[in-house]
Order: sequence, then C-alpha cells, then structure tokens
Amino acid sequence: MALYPQITIIGLGLIGSSLARAIQQHELTDCLVASDNVPETLTTVQDLKLADRTESDLADAVKDADLVILATPVGTYADLAKAMVPHLKDGATVSDVGSVKTSVLKAFTKNLPDHVHAIPGHPVAGTEQSGPEAGFTSLFQDRWCILTPPKNADQEAINSLTKLWEAVGSNVEIMDAEHHDRVLAITSHLPHLIAYNIVGTAHDLEEVTKSEVIKFSAGGFRDFTRIAASNPTMWRDVFLHNKEAVLEMLGRFAEDLSALQRAIRWEEGDKLYETFDKTRRIRTQIIEAKQDDAAPDFGRVHDDPEED
Amino acid sequence: MALYPQITIIGLGLIGSSLARAIQQHELTDCLVASDNVPETLTTVQDLKLADRTESDLADAVKDADLVILATPVGTYADLAKAMVPHLKDGATVSDVGSVKTSVLKAFTKNLPDHVHAIPGHPVAGTEQSGPEAGFTSLFQDRWCILTPPKNADQEAINSLTKLWEAVGSNVEIMDAEHHDRVLAITSHLPHLIAYNIVGTAHDLEEVTKSEVIKFSAGGFRDFTRIAASNPTMWRDVFLHNKEAVLEMLGRFAEDLSALQRAIRWEEGDKLYETFDKTRRIRTQIIEAKQDDAAPDFGRVHDDPEED
Repeated sequence: MALYPQITIIGLGLIGSSLARAIQQHELTDCLVASDNVPETLTTVQDLKLADRTESDLADAVKDADLVILATPVGTYADLAKAMVPHLKDGATVSDVGSVKTSVLKAFTKNLPDHVHAIPGHPVAGTEQSGPEAGFTSLFQDRWCILTPPKNADQEAINSLTKLWEAVGSNVEIMDAEHHDRVLAITSHLPHLIAYNIVGTAHDLEEVTKSEVIKFSAGGFRDFTRIAASNPTMWRDVFLHNKEAVLEMLGRFAEDLSALQRAIRWEEGDKLYETFDKTRRIRTQIIEAKQDDAAPDFGRVHDDPEED
Repeated sequence: MALYPQITIIGLGLIGSSLARAIQQHELTDCLVASDNVPETLTTVQDLKLADRTESDLADAVKDADLVILATPVGTYADLAKAMVPHLKDGATVSDVGSVKTSVLKAFTKNLPDHVHAIPGHPVAGTEQSGPEAGFTSLFQDRWCILTPPKNADQEAINSLTKLWEAVGSNVEIMDAEHHDRVLAITSHLPHLIAYNIVGTAHDLEEVTKSEVIKFSAGGFRDFTRIAASNPTMWRDVFLHNKEAVLEMLGRFAEDLSALQRAIRWEEGDKLYETFDKTRRIRTQIIEAKQDDAAPDFGRVHDDPEED
C-alpha cells in the first residue's frame, strides 16, 4: 500500500514539481493531484506527466487528499488554509515546503480545524531556477528536511510525513518553529539578502559599466548572482514573514562588517588575517557533511578543448 | 621560436602553477624557471615537472629571464622588485598576477630601472584552493586578463605579454590601473569581504550551533563558504592595497543594505520585490558572456543512485 492514498501538491514550481517527480519515482501515493492558480503551469504539469490529475479548483484538489502540501510563496498560506477548510477530510495532514516556519505554524493553527493534522515542513534544498520545468527528482537527496509540528501534534502523522521525506532521500529533523527561523535566518535568508544587495549595488554603479561587471564577474561576483536570481516573490515573502530573526542576524552581520571596514581603514592586517583564516575550516566541514561538492569552484567545468 | 626564450615565475601557488602548466602546454618558452621561498613548494614543482628548472635563489631565478611574473601575495612585490633590480637583464619584462594594480604599478615604477618593461597584469580567474597541486592548465580559458601598463610603456612588450595571455586562452583588456581597482573592488574584492564576513558572523553565533550552520548550509550559506575559503594572506594584502576603492564600494553596499533593512522592518514588500527582481537579469548576462555555467546550481552534481 502507498504511504498516502492521495497526495495533493498546491503550487508546481521548482520545489513542488521536484517533490511531485520524487513522489512518483518512489511510488509514495496511489493518486498524485497537482493544483496551481496559473493555468499554463498545469498544462506543463500535464505535458510532463508530473501528476495523475490536475485541478485548477482548490476544493476539488484537496477534498480527497490524505496529505496536502503547500508549495506556493508563504504569503499565500493563510488564505489557502482558510479556503481549504470546508473541503479537507477528517485526519488529513496539511504540510508545506516554505522557508519560514513560525508564521506558517500560526497560519495553520489559526485557520485549520482540529480534525486536520497541521505539520509545517521545510526541505532545505533548491536551485536558483523556478517553474515546473526546473524541478528534478534528486533535488532532496542528502539534504535536510525540517519539520516543525505544534506541541500537541499527532505522532503518527509526523511519522508518515517523516517517511515521505526520507523516501525521497532527505534526512529529517524535528525542530521548534522559532529556532528554525533563527537557524535559517543565518544559513539561508541573510545569504540571499546580501547576495541580492551586492548585485543591486553593482547594478546601480555609474562609474563601472554593466559590461565590466559582467566581464570581470569571475573574480567572485558571479557566485552571488546565482542566488540573487532566485524567485523574487518567494523571497519577498520570506523576509516579510521572518522579519525579527532576519533583522537580528543582519544587525550582527553589519556590526562584523563595520569591524572589518575599520580594520581596512586603519590597515590592521593581523585582524583581517585572523578573520579570513578562521572561516576556512567551515567549508571543509560542509563538504565532510556532504552538503556541498568537494570539487574546487563548485565543480564548475573548466573546458580546455586542446587538452586530452 | 618560443614567445619568450626564458620565463621565470616567482610563487608557485594556484595561479603561478596554473600559468606554469599552461605555458608548458602551449610551448611559450624554451626555459621555464620556477622560484618560491617555500622549499616544499619547489619540491612539489619538481615532482609534478611544472618547470624546466627550479631556483630557491631569486637572483639565479631572474638573471636570464625575458619575462618575470610575480605570483606571490601583492604585499611582497615592492621587496621582490628591489631585490631583483641588480639581476634583471636589459629589456626584460616584469609582470604579475595580483588582484590590485595601482599599488603594483607604483611598486614597479618606483623600484624597477628604466631598462626593464614593467607591465602589471591580472588574470581574473581562480578557485578557492591554494598551492601548486591545486593549479590546472585551463584555469585561464575564456577568462579575462587585464593589463595596466604605465603611460610610456613599450608597445612591443605589451604585445608579447598580450600574446602570452591569449595563448593560454584568455581575452586581454588594457585598462588604467585606478579604473581596474574600482572595477575589481565591486566584482571581486567586496564579494570576498562580505563572504568572509558572513561566514565569520555564522561562526561566532551562540544560539545557532556550528553543526546547524553546516547541516542547513544548502539554503544558500554554502555558496559563501567557497570564496571565504580562499588564501587569507593573499586577501589580507588585497584589502590593504586597494583600501580606498574597497571602502567606497563597501560604503555603497552598506547604504543599500540599510535601505533593504528598513524595507524589511516596515514591511515594504514592493520595495523588496523591486530589488529582488532587477538583479535577476545580470546572471543571464553573465552566462551569455560565458563567465559562468548555464547549468543550475553552478552545475553541482545532484546524485540519485536510484535514477537510471
């Protein structure tokens, strides 16, 4: 028997469509239903055969589902939860893949009825691309998925959802929603904010031309343009929904940056060296934990047509 | 006939050893001499057969050279130039691969005699790794090399050096040293500074454990750890030698970041969206200019052992 008789995914972007592919590959449901408010997306889902059924109507999409997974920008969750309520069946689980969790837990517990298991989730995985074509089966392989269930959550519902994420290749960690938001503020949200910011700063320069920024981007800048190419709606919602934790981490980052700025101004080489040296080891640990490639330069291909 | 009868490279780290490999492959000299003040490095150079001759003594290394290339941290250049003076032959070219150019041009023109052609250079290429084992032949393929000759420089000397960099696969651009330092401040130096800084901020957190930072780094943080694993001595010298331009770009970056911080605090979603949307296009342009891979996630390998 499949893990869930019916799974409904709402939102078939990069994450939703990758999850659909992985659920199909690992046969985790008898009936996979895809719903999206963009008609073209559902057409693509049909063309790529990413679901057993597509539904443009939310009520039709969720009414027989044993598991509903929201994979739209987190700003849409409260309205979606409200709209689903009359149609959810007893004992269904509602989860999501959003990058913030405190506000999601609030939106779920405030809007969803007691006969539904609300278990927010966050697979820490992605690429800079968007849309159903960008997804792929192995996106969650060896990544972590964090679940932030409410205190009184049903253990069996947590276990089934854990099995789903493990089946698609992830490690699962149960965490308090507020702690999740602080951890992700430093490991994901702040990195995106400063990447967006430096690309914006470069974009606005008058004295350095755009073509110079592009030509000489291999000096480091290009690394930042990757995450600064991420979905703007999704990231707007992340910052609006994890405001306090992001502002706190940003405050620490800015303080540390001021200290480096001062060290440069006063030519304190030892202080610079100390900072640059202590950060080296973290990358080794990330590679040891299989959270990044060991190959230099992210494994980028350095073509040499003349080399044999 | 080879482009230069003898080429001497001082400093056989990632860049110096990659250049040595590329010079050998493309047969750009009859005699490639390698010199380094670390004895183990010269042993590795011998083992890997990266040069025709190794010399631990600087005078012996440069005395017959037609081209000397400094590939040590830029803080060493003034002393190296002074020490070389009595041994350089008439008409030799002295160049380098340093990431800053105004201070290098000053160090060269102040210390080198008139019978020598001083032509600073900067190949905008690299990885986060260091040392002679980390180098590879195709590092400069499709990258830009910027030359910043003084105003009265010998055109033939510029032409020969241009040919050398083109032969190893690079595009060459001639630029004013001060303009170089402003362009690279935004495309390379500031990116490294903020990468080092955010990794430092994460390193120092008390409430989020080191293991959490590592486990959940695939949310974006891991991208920054790559360039924050770069050679600390080299980067200390870059910031000490390009102080003014870096401080100016850092000032702009900090201003822009304050505006984003304010937009988050006051929940100005439209302003956030606008910033996140305008930065998207730059990555497409970088990929079109062949300065990064088109593959998502830098082409990182997403293994799925069960996929066929």
